[in-house]
This record gives sequence, structure tokens and C-alpha cells, in this order.
Amino acid sequence: MDLIFLGTSAGTPTRSRNVSGLAVLEESGRGWHLVDCGEGTQHQILRTPLSLHTLESIFITHVHGDHCYGLPGLVASAGLTGRRAPLRIVGPADIERWLTTTLTLTGCTLPFELHFEAVERTSQWQSHTLHIDAWPLSHRVPSYAYRFTEARPGPQLAFASLERDGVPKGPLWGRLLRGEDVENQGRRFRSLDYVTFDREPRRILVAGDNDRPELLADACDGAQVLVHEATYTADVAERAGPNAGHSSAFGIAQFAQATGLPHLVLTHFSARYQNDERHSPSIETLREEAAAHYDGALFMAKDFQRYRLDKHGALMLLPDPA
Amino acid sequence: MDLIFLGTSAGTPTRSRNVSGLAVLEESGRGWHLVDCGEGTQHQILRTPLSLHTLESIFITHVHGDHCYGLPGLVASAGLTGRRAPLRIVGPADIERWLTTTLTLTGCTLPFELHFEAVERTSQWQSHTLHIDAWPLSHRVPSYAYRFTEARPGPQLAFASLERDGVPKGPLWGRLLRGEDVENQGRRFRSLDYVTFDREPRRILVAGDNDRPELLADACDGAQVLVHEATYTADVAERAGPNAGHSSAFGIAQFAQATGLPHLVLTHFSARYQNDERHSPSIETLREEAAAHYDGALFMAKDFQRYRLDKHGALMLLPDPA
Repeated sequence: MDLIFLGTSAGTPTRSRNVSGLAVLEESGRGWHLVDCGEGTQHQILRTPLSLHTLESIFITHVHGDHCYGLPGLVASAGLTGRRAPLRIVGPADIERWLTTTLTLTGCTLPFELHFEAVERTSQWQSHTLHIDAWPLSHRVPSYAYRFTEARPGPQLAFASLERDGVPKGPLWGRLLRGEDVENQGRRFRSLDYVTFDREPRRILVAGDNDRPELLADACDGAQVLVHEATYTADVAERAGPNAGHSSAFGIAQFAQATGLPHLVLTHFSARYQNDERHSPSIETLREEAAAHYDGALFMAKDFQRYRLDKHGALMLLPDPA
Repeated sequence: MDLIFLGTSAGTPTRSRNVSGLAVLEESGRGWHLVDCGEGTQHQILRTPLSLHTLESIFITHVHGDHCYGLPGLVASAGLTGRRAPLRIVGPADIERWLTTTLTLTGCTLPFELHFEAVERTSQWQSHTLHIDAWPLSHRVPSYAYRFTEARPGPQLAFASLERDGVPKGPLWGRLLRGEDVENQGRRFRSLDYVTFDREPRRILVAGDNDRPELLADACDGAQVLVHEATYTADVAERAGPNAGHSSAFGIAQFAQATGLPHLVLTHFSARYQNDERHSPSIETLREEAAAHYDGALFMAKDFQRYRLDKHGALMLLPDPA
């Protein structure tokens, strides 16, 4: 499971960071998911190996512009470049209202279907290899985290059961191993009865804007990775006041430490923080504050960084392909 | 008067071209105007000397996504970075409807006023040094050209008239020269009675999507520059059919030739045309088709190019500042 950061800035883009967007790639290579879609996300995608034709679903954490203003252009471009497969869009119900109004007023007819699912009404979804579920957060408007959990981690055939039930050897076994329920000569075999899983599922939690990390305590159970905002340092958060609805580097690090999370990836940095640490304040300021309170593996996300969560549950930053 | 191209691609962005956006800078250095605002226009602006704080007005040619999806993010960022001055937005009435709906649904409250002016109801505007007027075009949806005309080209004091009427020498003369009407000891003097203009006004016409260039015949009167779309070559236009609503390089060149326009700047190139002429088809293909039918000065716009129309009515491409 890979993550590609498409935008790591809060509120406004900067010359080196776009507003929010994060690609979650399925292990199978058969598709990917987009969490948030700030303005310019489609432009960022042009600079990655990602294609709008293999995008499975879009998850919007909350209805603020820096998390969704890229949606109409992204779906319009997917249509103009020939996408025909339906696209699932999960998010607060106002996303559907806004996007359909926008497409209508701007005369945009898509050659594929949009399947909207309101996160207020449904909180679990499936994809090729993942279970996805949503967790409510605390922000100025309703905001959610999305959790991506591997559905079938390290499947192994249970040979004793297959032989006991006389399941004919050959292609049937392969289909059961891949998760298919199969029929043979009037008998039905359920994959789950003949497959065991040999390791813990990989689990990545991607949070929207949130000023109460502790709301994610249950969601972090079994998660190897939390991607969370750290909009500013604790002193700036204090000056911004409680109405801003954001977490500080200190606050989220303290939570991750208490929860025993192995990997914490921070993102959504206020535009005041420079990428270049020769300029103050820089993201290094945020990193230092978080590192002082968190002993796990800490990463400060940058646009276009690609991370891989391997089968052993270890997260690594992949080298820049350029 | 300068032009800075912020996007020169039709429909979808490419790695080297953004969708439509063009900055028109006033001679005075006191402000600028934006014609069209495709997604990512605010990102492009970050790479120019332009500031969202000195933007006077936005003119939208028509309500298609590649010409307006950047509006909500641009005004939101202007607010977040401290703009307080009102901003005029001119365009089809649906622009107001869409933008206000968008800002409301996404919880965006601006710290400055938006002054909407529907081009269906008003077609003339003023700024510091320019008259601006709108001209209807032909496209799949209502589309307009905006024409920027210098209001006071080369003002000179009419000394004979000043002396004849006994207008006191000194600061009053300077104010009259700058266009102010003034009062002195109960007498009122109108600037227009004491100032003459020593040259033709500069005039730049910026068109939206349009499949009938001849609609601009009157608008081109006295214009030194026409910025117009040339979405594809004539043969591709033929294949696209009459419903596409676009001009070919051939069609617009033929019009500019017939009209005797001194400078033609083409833009809004289909994403199929590459910037790099080692790849076919490239924008060079479009240039060749236009050049074969137009004897004036022909320019193929590129993102971030800056053009200057000087006082003698000559247009030049300024060197890249990098």
C-alpha cells in the first residue's frame, strides 16, 4: 500500500506546496483512492504516475475549499480524456449538492457516472483489496477520517479443509485463494472457509482537519500509520484560538505517543511555514516540536513524496524517481 | 499596457500549460485585471510578480469550467492573505450564482466585498486608466470578448485655453492634466476642456471561446492587439464538427488578415498540441497554419509570457525574467 502526497499546505497553496490531496494506492496496482481534492489536484496528478482512469473513489474529509475546490475540474478532465468507468465520491452530503450544481451551471456533462455516498449515512465501503471506514472528527464543520484496511492480508489455502470437503484441485483452489466463492457440480464453496490470513492487515488512517486527536483513539487500533494535520506549532495554535479547529504539532504528537502509533505522517502545514529551513519559521520548526513528544517514526509530508507500507507493517519513504 | 498569460490550454491543463487565465496590467502600475480564471490560476499567479491585493477586476468570458473553476480558490486565498479592498467580478449572471453558492456551501466568508456585474445587463466599465467594454461572441454557451482601451492617451495641456480662461498656474494645471475636474474661487474647470490627447489610444481585445471571429469586426476598430483562441487546426475543427464552437488557426488568421489587425496573439490550444515541437502535433503546427494566412505580427502564447503594448502601438514579447 502506497501513499502519494499531492498537497500538504493548509488553506492556500504556496510555490512548493499545493492544498490538500492524498493518493492511497492499492497493493494490487488495480486502482487508487484520493482523499481530498483541493484546487490544482488534477495538475499535481499530471506530475505523478497516477491516472484519472484508474481512480476508484474520492473521499472528501470536509466541505472546505482547500479540500474540495479541485473536484469539478478533476472529474471534467477525467471525462474529457475518455474515462467511462463510474466514480465513487464519498463525503459530506453537501459535496454532492455542490458538485452537481457546479457541473450543471457550467454546462459540464460527464461521460461516466458519479456515485455519491454521504458519509453522514454510510460509514463503510469496500474496494478490490481494502475495507474503508469513516470516523468523525472535530472541526469548524463536520470533518471525517478515512481508514484503509487491507481486507485479505497474506491469504493461505487451508489444505486440510479443502481435502476434507473434497474440493477438486486445480483452478477452483486459485479462485478460492483470491477470495471468490465458487460453485462446482451443484456444490457451493465459500472462500472464507478455505483461506486463512497469515499476518495482521495493513491499516492506514487519513484524517481531515481536526482539533481533537483523541477522537481517533479507537480508530488507531491496529493502524500502523496515521496521516494527520499539524497546521501550526502549539504557540501559534494558542494565538489562533479554539475556533480555528486545528491541531498543533505538539497536540498530535502527544496523542500518537500515548496511542503507541508506530508511524506518524504530518501534513496540512500553514502557508507561514517554509519548506526551506533556511527561512524561519520552516516545517523544521513543526518537526522539532512533534519529535520532542513522539518516539515513533515521524515524517513531515512533502508534495510528491511517495511512501510504502510493506507487508511487515513498516513505512518507508521511497526515493524520488527523478 | 502589459499582458501576462497564466494559462493557454483548452479544456484540460497539461504539464506545460494551464487552462485559461490572462492578466491585463494597467500602464500606471496601479492595478491589473484578470480575464478568465481556470482552475490553478492562483497557483500560476504565485509564479509571477502579480498580487491578489492589486487585482482590480475579474472578467469571465463564459461559464465553462476551464474558464472559471479557479474563481472560488482565488478569492478565498485573497481573503486569507489579507485583502480588504472590494473586487469587481464581471461575467455572465450564472457566475454570481455559482460563486456565491460555492462560497456559502464551503463555509467561506470573505473579508472583502465582491461586486458582481452581469455582462448581460452592463457592457461598459471604467478603471484607473482604461475603458473596458464587452462584445458578444458565438459559442456553445453565451461568450464574450472584453476590450481594454486606454482612456487618456498622451494627455497634453491646452495652454491657450488655460490662459484664455485665466486658470491659475500651478498645481491646478497638474490636476487638470491628470484628468481631475477642479474648483477654484467658485469657478469650476473641467479637465476635458483643457487637455488634448496626442496619440491613438492603445486598445487590446481579449476574446473568449468563439467560432465566429467576424463578430469582432467592429470591436477590432482601432485595436492593435487581438488575443483569440485557436483551439485546433482547420482539419481537426472539421472533424470536431460545428457544435464544438471553436475557431481554427486558419479561421482566426483569415479574419485578422481581412481586418488588417497589426498583432494577433493565439491561445487556448487543445491539449493534443505539444509545446515541444519535437512532438507532433505541436503548437508549431497551429502557428504554421495561421502564418500562411496572416501577414501581421503573429504570436503563439505560452504560460508566463509577458507582452508589452507600447505607446506607439507596437506589441513585443518581453524577455523571460528568469
